[in-house]
Amino acid sequence: MTNANYYVVIMAGGTGTRLWPYSRQEHPKQFHDFLDSGQSLLQATAERFRSICPDSNILVVTSLAYKERILAQLPFLSESQVLTEPFKRNTAPCIAYASYKIRQQDPDALIVVTPVDQIILEEARFHHILQQALTQAALHPVLLTLGVKPSRPDTGFGYIQFVEGDDEICKVKTFTEKPPQELAEKFLESGDFVWNAGIFVWRVSAIIQALETHLVEIAENFVEALPHFGTAQEAEAIETAYTKCKSISIDYGVMEKADNVYVITGDFGWRDLGTWKSVYEVLPKDKHGNVSSGTIQLYETKNTLVKAPKDRLVVIQGLDDYIVTEFDNVLLICKKDQEQRVREFVEDARKRGEGFV
Amino acid sequence: MTNANYYVVIMAGGTGTRLWPYSRQEHPKQFHDFLDSGQSLLQATAERFRSICPDSNILVVTSLAYKERILAQLPFLSESQVLTEPFKRNTAPCIAYASYKIRQQDPDALIVVTPVDQIILEEARFHHILQQALTQAALHPVLLTLGVKPSRPDTGFGYIQFVEGDDEICKVKTFTEKPPQELAEKFLESGDFVWNAGIFVWRVSAIIQALETHLVEIAENFVEALPHFGTAQEAEAIETAYTKCKSISIDYGVMEKADNVYVITGDFGWRDLGTWKSVYEVLPKDKHGNVSSGTIQLYETKNTLVKAPKDRLVVIQGLDDYIVTEFDNVLLICKKDQEQRVREFVEDARKRGEGFV
Repeated sequence: MTNANYYVVIMAGGTGTRLWPYSRQEHPKQFHDFLDSGQSLLQATAERFRSICPDSNILVVTSLAYKERILAQLPFLSESQVLTEPFKRNTAPCIAYASYKIRQQDPDALIVVTPVDQIILEEARFHHILQQALTQAALHPVLLTLGVKPSRPDTGFGYIQFVEGDDEICKVKTFTEKPPQELAEKFLESGDFVWNAGIFVWRVSAIIQALETHLVEIAENFVEALPHFGTAQEAEAIETAYTKCKSISIDYGVMEKADNVYVITGDFGWRDLGTWKSVYEVLPKDKHGNVSSGTIQLYETKNTLVKAPKDRLVVIQGLDDYIVTEFDNVLLICKKDQEQRVREFVEDARKRGEGFV
Repeated sequence: MTNANYYVVIMAGGTGTRLWPYSRQEHPKQFHDFLDSGQSLLQATAERFRSICPDSNILVVTSLAYKERILAQLPFLSESQVLTEPFKRNTAPCIAYASYKIRQQDPDALIVVTPVDQIILEEARFHHILQQALTQAALHPVLLTLGVKPSRPDTGFGYIQFVEGDDEICKVKTFTEKPPQELAEKFLESGDFVWNAGIFVWRVSAIIQALETHLVEIAENFVEALPHFGTAQEAEAIETAYTKCKSISIDYGVMEKADNVYVITGDFGWRDLGTWKSVYEVLPKDKHGNVSSGTIQLYETKNTLVKAPKDRLVVIQGLDDYIVTEFDNVLLICKKDQEQRVREFVEDARKRGEGFV
């Protein structure tokens, strides 16, 4: 059941370039339904948390350009629940803004911070872990992060080294963002590393204290803006604050420096939906290992992801291990193991300046 | 210069299934500009012959569905110059219809019959050969066909075996349509075989005599329709005639049986534009052997044909020896050596009955 003290902050400011051509500047990945689930990533993320707090306690932080679309996809939000950032400054300023906002409303708030681009396959297990985290955060002024047992030496994630605690809650020793392959393999062998899911749980007082200790300038910028919160000057004050903020992640700026950081590790079917390969991996395959979404005819094709609008016919013969995605006015065909290069393709497309990105 | 006795019959009734998704039931290949030349195959074919006869002597035989589009693409034609076939009956009934039509207008006519889906790279040489053929046809009651020296044992063409005559004009010994690989190789070795270009030259009296000798029923059907030519009943009479006609090619029904058949062989850059591979072969390649038509970004891609509308961006990484063609609401990706299977893909698409063919 929901708790009036619980707040959820959904960080939805990203552009998801690697999921182009679906993810576009004007229509980024959080608004798409990559899994044909009937819900966009934004909607699925919001639904995941509606059961733990009142709708009025859900905040979405995003850029001004996306505010209307967010309100359209989440009609239960009021305008004041969509915080808009004037520029991208990574996660620390985003979390600072939301935290001071929430403290003004409820100094005893317990906050869950989540990215918008994740899939949770085991919702029940997830909520069990989350409740544990919220209980701990209510009892102690700690910074909690959710950890996931690594299944492979993935170099795209952040790794958390923990020191033995009781079963599920451990003190964090080190954070390592996107390690090189060899290091990631060592982490896996050692057994005392987990993936950082990027989902944080803390008391508003705990995170604000951490910000004021480890990111003094950023904290000060928002303290200056505070008197204007809820007034016609809020946007202007926030723009001033963001202009002075450096771009820095909460992991690097706070979690790696604070000494009251704990990780709760669970197995709740966590997936980070950052690339086409991750979309391929999370979706069901046919007997040839193909994932098809759309009106599609495949011949001698294996291990391939094909996604296109239903009103277009896609006929493919003789592809193995490719990504074929078509959206709006762009078609992308790329080897699955080259998915990271989508960024490069988008940069080249941007130079055409013809509305392809 | 043009000659008032010369007539040209363009056979434009085909559907060009193997060039799908560009070639569609409603918009078949003859109306497309596959070479980005600024002219459709129909327009390029018509232009090729405007220099040898008056515009009023050019007839196009097609199905009713295409009449308007043909008049739109060839505005110099009058309605009466587009002969419409009620059903497809292969080339013999098509040529019979046109021949009786022309004889009514000019009993001394000399006719050139041509398919609509050919490319002639050496127009000057072509016209030289054509003039020789027309001269011979004026002097003798012969059936002339244009031959092309074979460059490979292609199993998709018809082969003509000739007996030695003077340099360029030889009596035909045998016709062999689409021979098996081994046979095609033998033909090439023997040196006395040429490809049948499917371009015929004859006096109207010669072809009608041949039809009335070797395809008696078909000839009779059109003789019965004759009185209605040029009247309001022509369409009805032609429908009756076609209903009674069997489907048979002029090669099989006449050329293989007549004893007054000659071939004039020339090297005029003849290309049959029947498949995507043939489109690939005739177009200029970049240094990686790619042919690109549209707004296209290629990465680590070789020997591939990419064709899409200019307002769409196509990004391809890591393909070798493929065909990627997109048109309207269909995308086709296929290994180049599997191009013959396009027919199968279209059949499967037809079953969807959703306007993809």
